[in-house]
Amino acid sequence: MTHTIDWSDGPAVVIIDQTLLPQREEILRLTSVPELIGAIQRLAVRGAPALGVAGALGVALAARVSADPVADVATLRAARPTAVNLARGVDRVAARLAEGPEVVLAEALAVRDEDIASSASMGRYGADLVTELIGPEPRLLTHCNTGGLACVTGGTALGVITTLHADGRRVEVIASETRPLLQGARLTAWELARAGVPYRLAVDGAGPFLMARGEVDAVILGADRICANGDVVNKVGTYAHALGAARAGIPFLVVAPETTVDMATKSGADVEIEDRGAAEISSTGAPAVNPAFDVTPHDLVTAIITDRRVVRLSRGETLAGVVLGPLR
Amino acid sequence: MTHTIDWSDGPAVVIIDQTLLPQREEILRLTSVPELIGAIQRLAVRGAPALGVAGALGVALAARVSADPVADVATLRAARPTAVNLARGVDRVAARLAEGPEVVLAEALAVRDEDIASSASMGRYGADLVTELIGPEPRLLTHCNTGGLACVTGGTALGVITTLHADGRRVEVIASETRPLLQGARLTAWELARAGVPYRLAVDGAGPFLMARGEVDAVILGADRICANGDVVNKVGTYAHALGAARAGIPFLVVAPETTVDMATKSGADVEIEDRGAAEISSTGAPAVNPAFDVTPHDLVTAIITDRRVVRLSRGETLAGVVLGPLR
Repeated sequence: MTHTIDWSDGPAVVIIDQTLLPQREEILRLTSVPELIGAIQRLAVRGAPALGVAGALGVALAARVSADPVADVATLRAARPTAVNLARGVDRVAARLAEGPEVVLAEALAVRDEDIASSASMGRYGADLVTELIGPEPRLLTHCNTGGLACVTGGTALGVITTLHADGRRVEVIASETRPLLQGARLTAWELARAGVPYRLAVDGAGPFLMARGEVDAVILGADRICANGDVVNKVGTYAHALGAARAGIPFLVVAPETTVDMATKSGADVEIEDRGAAEISSTGAPAVNPAFDVTPHDLVTAIITDRRVVRLSRGETLAGVVLGPLR
Repeated sequence: MTHTIDWSDGPAVVIIDQTLLPQREEILRLTSVPELIGAIQRLAVRGAPALGVAGALGVALAARVSADPVADVATLRAARPTAVNLARGVDRVAARLAEGPEVVLAEALAVRDEDIASSASMGRYGADLVTELIGPEPRLLTHCNTGGLACVTGGTALGVITTLHADGRRVEVIASETRPLLQGARLTAWELARAGVPYRLAVDGAGPFLMARGEVDAVILGADRICANGDVVNKVGTYAHALGAARAGIPFLVVAPETTVDMATKSGADVEIEDRGAAEISSTGAPAVNPAFDVTPHDLVTAIITDRRVVRLSRGETLAGVVLGPLR
């Protein structure tokens, strides 16, 4: 399976179960909306762009199999609150529900195909920017998983890295392990090894020090929501890495499709940050505070790279001020 | 056993095996210097002050049981390179080797007793400073383990916290789990629960965000070496927390005995940072960069609290400029 998530006539939404990687590659066929919601909530499918596609395909599934599609769609939309893409994917396809299941499916498949094109375009925009800023041998630090597993295929920040690699650049990666669920150690390492990109894992607390020690040329990572003012909501640990990059004087690059940009949300302070509970951190019943995401203020972001443009916040550019360019 | 490390006529150095906590409380009797070195290297005993006592008691053990005490003492001295206390403890007691094993043991036991007095004194200095800076209800974030398990008993930063608690302050703690070996989740949580101090665990990457969100009044942690210019070498992740504290405008407090202050080392750049290898981070054979410590530049440190003084770096005070006060 080359797609992280896809449609299967059956009907079913088909996903790679990411909770089992890298030990096992297991395909799940989700034949009801509650099954899909369960998969989303236990992170069997995760990553902002992939969640957008999950939302879209989920509506197509609801149109075929749900007794009450409208209710199922509403529950699906709220399955995870932080990434804007899930609600967006749901809303876009749900707007076609009245036109019947064939139209709904066609719209959902369009969301999937646009995600594939979007990944390719981000890879190109990002690879060109990294080469411009750093040259042909970039040493990049990334956080969480932003590869094909976070999208349908390709990726956001990790898609930039694999594009650089395909371009023949001598790219080296430090992948932070990304506690508590180790998306970096489990998923990013798996993708980088498969792609043949040299990498080293690091604990999340080490990133800023590795930057200070001169081992990182830029930080590049994804986003779950980008606010109108440029604040970036992303996997917890992102903000600490941004502070490290600012102190080290290296670029801090955020890669996400336009569907992640939420101009209706003014700043990071307006975003609900999901707390995923103590059990993810400790199995002993110890109390915990477990925000799954954090907010990186826009002044720490060098540039936002989407599938349609590069917005250089460090040069005073804004999301409102930079017009969309072509998909590449 | 109320002491993390102690002497037993046998002779043996006796320790709590910290690799087994919190699941099992197992006491190890180490009857040779190579056994003690093994315990130090696999972190069955750890924490800068405890390592100083381990060095001291190790020399006493060498004087009794080693075929070649001078060679064993040299190997012991180099067992871990970053914390200055180990070498200091070794050197102080080894200077008495010519005077015979009784004198050597008396010197080693003096090192142990001074560590106990030192913990009590740090707790007092630190608790008074926290109360002055924050008031009677401090919400403190700490990193790694700096409690009784890092010393003979009492602790450095965690000793300040338990002193505040004993003073009747309403102290609340966020304990970062401290990857890769989880000294926070395993050891600090265990100590805080035993002491009855309210706490929550957090992943290492969350600390700066929790500070930005207003959930932390100060960061308080230990040090493995404090350089002449005030740079702090401590468990990896410390620097990221210092960046978070600076951005949030909250105090960043370092607690360590005078034996951790190394005026012979000018700055953090001069300290060898131990890399503990990939196996600690990943069991799958993935490559890793694993610095066990990092360097926090002195400009990010609000104050250094020792057993003999408080040095307020944020007010321009220096280690060279503030004279030693009394043990308290």
